[in-house]
Amino acid sequence: MLTKNRLSLTEYVKGVLDGDRMILSRAITLVESSLPSDQLIAEKVMEGILPYSGKSIRIGVTGVPGVGKSTFIESFGKILVEKGHKVAVLAVDPSSQQSHGSILGDKTRMENLASDKRAYIRPSPAGSTLGGVSARTREGMLLCEAAGFDVILIETVGVGQSEIAVKGMVDFFLLLMLAGAGDELQGIKKGIIEISDAMVINKADGSNQEAAKNARREYANALHLFPAKENGWIPPVKTCSSIYQTGLEEIWEMVVTYKQKMLVNGYWEDNRSRQRISWLHENIRYLFEQRFFQNEKIKNRMDQILPEIRLGKLSVMAKAKELVDIFTGQIKDIE
Amino acid sequence: MLTKNRLSLTEYVKGVLDGDRMILSRAITLVESSLPSDQLIAEKVMEGILPYSGKSIRIGVTGVPGVGKSTFIESFGKILVEKGHKVAVLAVDPSSQQSHGSILGDKTRMENLASDKRAYIRPSPAGSTLGGVSARTREGMLLCEAAGFDVILIETVGVGQSEIAVKGMVDFFLLLMLAGAGDELQGIKKGIIEISDAMVINKADGSNQEAAKNARREYANALHLFPAKENGWIPPVKTCSSIYQTGLEEIWEMVVTYKQKMLVNGYWEDNRSRQRISWLHENIRYLFEQRFFQNEKIKNRMDQILPEIRLGKLSVMAKAKELVDIFTGQIKDIE
Repeated sequence: MLTKNRLSLTEYVKGVLDGDRMILSRAITLVESSLPSDQLIAEKVMEGILPYSGKSIRIGVTGVPGVGKSTFIESFGKILVEKGHKVAVLAVDPSSQQSHGSILGDKTRMENLASDKRAYIRPSPAGSTLGGVSARTREGMLLCEAAGFDVILIETVGVGQSEIAVKGMVDFFLLLMLAGAGDELQGIKKGIIEISDAMVINKADGSNQEAAKNARREYANALHLFPAKENGWIPPVKTCSSIYQTGLEEIWEMVVTYKQKMLVNGYWEDNRSRQRISWLHENIRYLFEQRFFQNEKIKNRMDQILPEIRLGKLSVMAKAKELVDIFTGQIKDIE
Repeated sequence: MLTKNRLSLTEYVKGVLDGDRMILSRAITLVESSLPSDQLIAEKVMEGILPYSGKSIRIGVTGVPGVGKSTFIESFGKILVEKGHKVAVLAVDPSSQQSHGSILGDKTRMENLASDKRAYIRPSPAGSTLGGVSARTREGMLLCEAAGFDVILIETVGVGQSEIAVKGMVDFFLLLMLAGAGDELQGIKKGIIEISDAMVINKADGSNQEAAKNARREYANALHLFPAKENGWIPPVKTCSSIYQTGLEEIWEMVVTYKQKMLVNGYWEDNRSRQRISWLHENIRYLFEQRFFQNEKIKNRMDQILPEIRLGKLSVMAKAKELVDIFTGQIKDIE
């Protein structure tokens, strides 16, 4: 993630504020970099663009693989740009230890939206950790806002971890579903349904229309089983066809209605305030880990104890304490 | 989580090694406590019991709500104690922000196993964070091992986050499923299927037997789509009835076979070694957060900046760095 030919602070800030997509991309890469020298500038870039950020609607889009997230985002994004919006698409990829996700990684996806000048698509960096990606995805979002994008779509796949991370950075969380799934499916997605602001049955087209309508009714009934949300919003269940572009206008209207209501009852700003606090916490955790494992004293002590930790001969609890003591300066020298 | 009437270090260690269930419970409570004075003894207790830990088979059990995890664990545990094993059951509860899980919290559950002297059931502490619970669940596991339990069953519910945590602390990860679920279900559980060492279709009884057999075949076919595991193990798909206690013996035999094969090819110890390293990392993270947010300088600075962070007027990235600098002593005094 080395950032080559770094620009100056002013060039980054001005370029982003001018909506220069090339510089926007380079600024996001800079922010994602773990090089201390990059981070120093990245911080200042973020301070520079901060006053110009925050003015978008941030929408999280999730759903199981195969539900059609990319096609939905492409069609939905297209409708929004036609309405005069500027749409940025970011991805949060959980990058599981076992498999490497391909979310937005496939260059051939979202071709239609990607070629539109009113849209900006940023694929997820490959191989990043969840913590890193989600911490930096927020910075990417602010950079896009400063560059003039007023709708941010954040795509994530359904493994739980990433969804909770995305829920923590968006204003509206949309769950895409498929018709034809039974009670078990609802059980599995319970955690996700609880954090969703709307459920949309995708692929409601052709011979699937009837099933979609039934599923809509079924899910709407199921939602009654959940406790009311603190913001008073009752998550609607909608159907749409991303391919035939039906139902998409209604989804946008729903999001707009949501924003209006939440602005009135104060939840909109409350939610963002809370998100900024947990964002701070995430950044602290991220920085701590970077510094901890790069610290020379820690590295040396780790080299000494890891062989015995591996064999189970040293107590993990005691050694963790010792290492944190060393890092925070409570134990100055180790014999 | 205040530990009242604390015992002496020797009393804790001797009590646990004697298999005294009351003291085992108190030792687990001590280890879960976030009080610095408790942690000091807890660390020493862990060092004292360490040489007597590690000799169990650690099995993670997961599945969607309604799949019958508790009934399975009760029946499976009962069969194991009849074979002469001593079985401990621990729970990892993701305690989602929105809902409070009830995993093992209901006292009326697992009555049959709970009343058996050869078994020990430890409910999940309510309201704990995921990080805390999973970090301390490992310590609880070692304490149970030192107390003579040779099979540890760790129950978790399916929201992704907790499953990955549990996978990181067990030798064998078992996924319970239900018959009658289609392709979408498989899609959702993809991440979990990938980390499972076996899939068991539960409730294969009565009129459900045929469906269970079909599901078994379907899942067995689906598993061929996944890449081979590094340890050479091909996850079997089994059926069982927890209520009629059929198929449970086969599941135990499968676990024993797994252990034998993994001992031979070296994966058993490799896996545990890796787990101990990530356990160390988790403990470091956990300790750091505790100390960070209890630090007076941090608290003071937080009080100063949080109002403006909430309003989005200060850069999160810059302030996170400043706070970590203060904590690690790079900035001694703040004006």
